[in-house]
Amino acid sequence: MNRIATDPFLPPERLLLGPGPSPVAPEVLAALAHHTIGHLDPAFIRLMDELKGMMQAAFNTTNEATLAVAGPGSVGMDAAVLNLAEPGDKILIARNGVFGMRMSEVASRGGAVVVPVDFEWGKPVDPAVVDAALEANPGVKIVAFVHAETSTGVLSDAGAIAAVAEKHGALTIMDAVTSLGGVPVLVNEWGVDAVYSGTQKCLSCPPGLSPVSFSPRAIAHIKARKTKVLSWFLDVTQVMSYWGGEGARAYHHTAPINSLYGLHEALRRLMIEGLEYSFARHRQAHLHLVDGLAKMGIDFLVDEKYRLPQLNAVLIPAGVNDAAVRSSLLNDHNIEIGAGLGPLAGKVWRIGLMGEGARIQHVDRLLGSLKIVLASQTA
Amino acid sequence: MNRIATDPFLPPERLLLGPGPSPVAPEVLAALAHHTIGHLDPAFIRLMDELKGMMQAAFNTTNEATLAVAGPGSVGMDAAVLNLAEPGDKILIARNGVFGMRMSEVASRGGAVVVPVDFEWGKPVDPAVVDAALEANPGVKIVAFVHAETSTGVLSDAGAIAAVAEKHGALTIMDAVTSLGGVPVLVNEWGVDAVYSGTQKCLSCPPGLSPVSFSPRAIAHIKARKTKVLSWFLDVTQVMSYWGGEGARAYHHTAPINSLYGLHEALRRLMIEGLEYSFARHRQAHLHLVDGLAKMGIDFLVDEKYRLPQLNAVLIPAGVNDAAVRSSLLNDHNIEIGAGLGPLAGKVWRIGLMGEGARIQHVDRLLGSLKIVLASQTA
Repeated sequence: MNRIATDPFLPPERLLLGPGPSPVAPEVLAALAHHTIGHLDPAFIRLMDELKGMMQAAFNTTNEATLAVAGPGSVGMDAAVLNLAEPGDKILIARNGVFGMRMSEVASRGGAVVVPVDFEWGKPVDPAVVDAALEANPGVKIVAFVHAETSTGVLSDAGAIAAVAEKHGALTIMDAVTSLGGVPVLVNEWGVDAVYSGTQKCLSCPPGLSPVSFSPRAIAHIKARKTKVLSWFLDVTQVMSYWGGEGARAYHHTAPINSLYGLHEALRRLMIEGLEYSFARHRQAHLHLVDGLAKMGIDFLVDEKYRLPQLNAVLIPAGVNDAAVRSSLLNDHNIEIGAGLGPLAGKVWRIGLMGEGARIQHVDRLLGSLKIVLASQTA
Repeated sequence: MNRIATDPFLPPERLLLGPGPSPVAPEVLAALAHHTIGHLDPAFIRLMDELKGMMQAAFNTTNEATLAVAGPGSVGMDAAVLNLAEPGDKILIARNGVFGMRMSEVASRGGAVVVPVDFEWGKPVDPAVVDAALEANPGVKIVAFVHAETSTGVLSDAGAIAAVAEKHGALTIMDAVTSLGGVPVLVNEWGVDAVYSGTQKCLSCPPGLSPVSFSPRAIAHIKARKTKVLSWFLDVTQVMSYWGGEGARAYHHTAPINSLYGLHEALRRLMIEGLEYSFARHRQAHLHLVDGLAKMGIDFLVDEKYRLPQLNAVLIPAGVNDAAVRSSLLNDHNIEIGAGLGPLAGKVWRIGLMGEGARIQHVDRLLGSLKIVLASQTA
């Protein structure tokens, strides 16, 4: 019988200033280590109720169908797309980065007919262009877009896009993976029908869970489907038998107990701080970074108007070795920043100031280290 | 802006002797609370390599495509079924409990043509019946079965079922959610093509991850598919760009970092103990339970030959209030046991002796408490 005795794993103490995961508060890490209980334990059901209330507050929604999908943000994307779109349904996907592209892939694998509307990477989704595309493509049932593109650091005007969809009688899917907790996410006010997020960005929780929320209109639409949702695990009408309503909960799947302890504590901290304070803290850290980088002659990819405070795509100075800088920051300074993706590879760094990462002292540490590393490159 | 300030969540100290989750060792809980690092950090890639080696050892396989899916066992089921079966493919599913039924649902939602072969709940899958069904249904591409049925406590002869599939040129999918770590799982020797498990049973880890493994034959089959795997997230050829091979890892999804710390520590503990010792410990605890229950006049659902040591379905004595007993065990004695499912609801209790739960002292505590609770019922 095979035996592989390795040492216990002790991770290095990195400062996580990349595109996620973000730094996790000690209180959240401690919560993860609480005694595991059963997924049908009455004490656990109470935890789920509190989680639901706090997710509703974070999403600014009263949607009953608000829950944490037991998988990372990509699974939340699957949940939104596969529940709303039936095979053959036309779905318009606004694409201005990696995650819009991924949504297309998810939708077309699920048999939907994708109507792509492409924007330059680094620019926001233009609601007028979406409007024109909906005029030109009758019968679109769903409009999907990314609120905060993690690959480019761009914020799009979610309210305006949702209003355009509404005008054409289409449902909306919004990717709020990087926005939730860092900038306002107003699900009810904007009339978004399905939204998904992730825990490892501005919620400052370890990765692995995806808060999602479906509007009553979305739930009615799902209940009226002609075909079953392709994934039994993600079928929200099934999952709600466990997460939903009053009274006894039916076993659907075994919930990721300890990860949910962590999310409870992370959301609790966010509620105590207050969403508006969290947004202001992200903005303040971002402006401090803008200021510091400007003094080093480093500019941003994205126009000031559309910049995400929590995800800063900055242009790599000419003559600088991208990989060597990131590697030195990680190995010599214990700071993680992100590389560019797709057409932006080698052109930008992605500096995340998310959740616990959005603090002036972390920005100062990064600026100090970056100066040293860049100086050593040109020495 | 909404604020919901709740107290920190402090779970009660339950002794988990139900169908899972099982008790988690303090070392594993402590590992969960380690500092979060990035999913592309070289230190994390080393952790993934060690994880793969330990999962291969646990599965008794050399399969390169061995990894932990970022979701609970139900997602591992999705991964196995949706990767191997294309829409229109015939899949024979042997069903002798809840999880065979669930596999049918997963396969038919994915567009496969299910050939169900049903057995009485509480009985094992009979390889001769599977053989006859394959004779009667030409063109079956995949045979799927549950090794250890969590809903009934039955162990089926996986080697014999896989041999029958092989004889008919079909691939095999095996559900090893409850078997892995508690009884031998010999993936290479049996020639199983896709296997999935869960962390919250005999591995004694919190729920949320699904170790899976695909044979080289399965991978070749997946690469030769005419259609894309319905789920982008679960497409194993995509996921392996992150989990697989030598050299640079490509970003696919954000791995559940801290949950994987926990799995690393749980597998490390299993490797140090040794699989054979773990099996013997499960068997010993089981026999102690059989003995103790016999003295109380409580019998088993399953014939001795097919009983799972880690999942004991025991007949509820006549005149006893099922729900009241379980509730009193939980609330007055802090012991969780499981209810019967489907046709066995109200007829059996499911007593799990899984992983850290498979210890004589836990069995003694349960027997003592059960005596008190049953006495109070008849008093």
